[in-house]
Amino acid sequence: MTETTKEQQNLNPVAVKINEGIKNENPYVYEMLSNYGREVYFSKDGNVKQIADAKKYSKEFNATSGFATEHGKPMYLPLLADTLSDYDPADIFLYSSTLGSPELRTTWQEKMYTENPSLHDKKISNPIATIGLTHGLNLAANLFVNEGDTYILPDKQWENYKMIFSETKKANMVTYPMYDKDFHFDTEAFRQTLLSQRNKKKIIVILNFPNNPTGYTPLPHEADELAAAIKEVAEYGVNVVVISDDAYFGLFYKDSITESLFGRLANIHPRVLAIKVDGATKEEYTWGFRVGFLTFGINSDAMNEYLEEKVMGVIRTSISNGPTPSQTFILHALKSPQLAKQKADKFEIMEKRARKIDELLSSGKYDDAWDLYPFNSGYFFAIKVKGVNADQARIHLLQKYNVGTIALGDTDLRIAFSRVDVEHLEELVHRLYEGIKDLQ
Amino acid sequence: MTETTKEQQNLNPVAVKINEGIKNENPYVYEMLSNYGREVYFSKDGNVKQIADAKKYSKEFNATSGFATEHGKPMYLPLLADTLSDYDPADIFLYSSTLGSPELRTTWQEKMYTENPSLHDKKISNPIATIGLTHGLNLAANLFVNEGDTYILPDKQWENYKMIFSETKKANMVTYPMYDKDFHFDTEAFRQTLLSQRNKKKIIVILNFPNNPTGYTPLPHEADELAAAIKEVAEYGVNVVVISDDAYFGLFYKDSITESLFGRLANIHPRVLAIKVDGATKEEYTWGFRVGFLTFGINSDAMNEYLEEKVMGVIRTSISNGPTPSQTFILHALKSPQLAKQKADKFEIMEKRARKIDELLSSGKYDDAWDLYPFNSGYFFAIKVKGVNADQARIHLLQKYNVGTIALGDTDLRIAFSRVDVEHLEELVHRLYEGIKDLQ
Repeated sequence: MTETTKEQQNLNPVAVKINEGIKNENPYVYEMLSNYGREVYFSKDGNVKQIADAKKYSKEFNATSGFATEHGKPMYLPLLADTLSDYDPADIFLYSSTLGSPELRTTWQEKMYTENPSLHDKKISNPIATIGLTHGLNLAANLFVNEGDTYILPDKQWENYKMIFSETKKANMVTYPMYDKDFHFDTEAFRQTLLSQRNKKKIIVILNFPNNPTGYTPLPHEADELAAAIKEVAEYGVNVVVISDDAYFGLFYKDSITESLFGRLANIHPRVLAIKVDGATKEEYTWGFRVGFLTFGINSDAMNEYLEEKVMGVIRTSISNGPTPSQTFILHALKSPQLAKQKADKFEIMEKRARKIDELLSSGKYDDAWDLYPFNSGYFFAIKVKGVNADQARIHLLQKYNVGTIALGDTDLRIAFSRVDVEHLEELVHRLYEGIKDLQ
Repeated sequence: MTETTKEQQNLNPVAVKINEGIKNENPYVYEMLSNYGREVYFSKDGNVKQIADAKKYSKEFNATSGFATEHGKPMYLPLLADTLSDYDPADIFLYSSTLGSPELRTTWQEKMYTENPSLHDKKISNPIATIGLTHGLNLAANLFVNEGDTYILPDKQWENYKMIFSETKKANMVTYPMYDKDFHFDTEAFRQTLLSQRNKKKIIVILNFPNNPTGYTPLPHEADELAAAIKEVAEYGVNVVVISDDAYFGLFYKDSITESLFGRLANIHPRVLAIKVDGATKEEYTWGFRVGFLTFGINSDAMNEYLEEKVMGVIRTSISNGPTPSQTFILHALKSPQLAKQKADKFEIMEKRARKIDELLSSGKYDDAWDLYPFNSGYFFAIKVKGVNADQARIHLLQKYNVGTIALGDTDLRIAFSRVDVEHLEELVHRLYEGIKDLQ
């Protein structure tokens, strides 16, 4: 009995079938699946299949699924429909598909191809709608991360990665220094960190650009170097699950690449599974809607279906499906002829703020208080404070100067300029400086 | 070193503190926590705490959290706000709290007390907003179910319990026959099944009334017997996590109790942790909104806080927070003076259908084709077909009679009368009968 056969003997036959399918399309992707990822499946033979059967054959007498109708239309409370009269009640009140509104998914995929030129000749899965980006990360972690796996992040990172991957999934975080001593993005440190794992069977790499907290996106040659390092370690025989967390996608103000690294990574090597986690949350300024997406670089349509079945298994047992109103609103926005202009208006506001910060912080006036981490994109910039503890500075800035920042580790402060109007930025920087000088 | 100390030594100090708190309030609830439930915590010292600090002290200069503002208001796309002009943009576009809109939560709690008289002198937690009812079940399973635990269900059950508790959590399902040979709800079978587990340290009991698939809710004396059996097994020293899945709450047409069993179960015994999973999904006819709630019977305010911190830990790492528009719409509905009348209108439609089914099926005309399982509530009724296989009957009914039903096991068909107008019910029953007779 082979190892695989033994592994599979306790699995549900549907899971075995999906696993065999994945193995056929790309055995490395099968190897990348976590134990839970191998076990999970979506039971097509259950209610969901019977409901799909019924849709084909019955209208007045479709007594299958658990919602309520009057004269073939969903029952709804007029007091709610009255406030949502721009939308068809069916697009507001009814359940969404497990993987999200089909039209929303294909529309998002088209957007992805348009905005990421490097993707043009690459095959990607149909994006799966998620409850914001956290849910996309959680789904990826469920499918591909086992206890003891290694995942790689820069030392400047969003705090929730640790909570998801280390605390919940019990994977081990390995970090690389994001910037070298001259404050340039250290792609060689990234490469060396990956190569240090070359005896592992699998690693998970998380790339988050524009970066939270520093607001950095790689320059074109840096992006090429990151992709090359991933390919290099894959060529050593390491399976690489590489997740592009593109939360702040589109907000590129300067000299960086203006697309996702996912374009450079998708299908770069059979041992590389590129995953894109993105969403309308920040891109369309709809934080509370909770519409994110999970997309895979794939080598075949069959692989798309297998991965969809895996994800459906997770979604069905955790939330059943996502919020229909939110998905409908985002689809409405994506299809609106006004979207481009309105997004450009918001971009212009953000870009003006970014330019102002550049102007203020490149003056040299504040160099005795902090170093600025390179920033060219996103919602944030971050500084490395000099001669004071970051959290003490945070508290002092808050209490004496009413300036709210986020302290990260002992030396860094993150400033969300997304929350500060351009006319207040000079005053903000002035207060930051005064506050830090007070404590030095 | 005590066993507990050993268990806790690898945990995060915040988790240890919450666990000690839970133990102080009720050591049995600590015993009920799964391994993951013991590990999970919400890091108050992270960004979230710093953001809360900043809210107190800073306005123009609050540069903490990751959303974007203009002049102190959220940035949003006018094309979306135009379609939602009955609402304040802040109630649509901004993130919700991790546990849901505070006003929505207290409003739902008030509703719960009003509609469940048995709760009047009982302490319950502040309801936590979930992504529909599945998410409430998933959160409860995450906190309280380990591999190998036993959970108890009737043989008539929603298929997703098995997917969540057996397939994902690897707990063992133990079933009891829901009806005796005379088609009465078999509370004694329930009691005996619980007592058969009296040597276990912990069991999980799921009570789903109005039942999916049969549409049954216990009569008052049956409800008392269920509660007494749970108390009895707790008195043997078994910790009992008892989950009331009240998806179809409120749709009571006949002689049943007209409130949740949660009222009879909350705080019935220190070893009984009563959990209520409910939501607006079916109650307010808002299936696609994904607004459910998770509520605990608790013995102290401190316990409310500890359980909230546990749930926040799970939510933060899986979805971050729920959909703000959906929560805002439901709050709007709950506060509307029109709600009572509009819900009564829908109830009347459903009740007329239920009466018609009663009238049709009690005529004796169909007794050679099926037995009707007792039904008095909810969206469904279910029949036990005679002399044919249920799935074969389902397919035949669909293909020849265009009637869509759900087959469950070898003998049962579930019919969602929520989807069939009253004037079509006689024809529906006629077709069901013809279809089954064809195959006998």
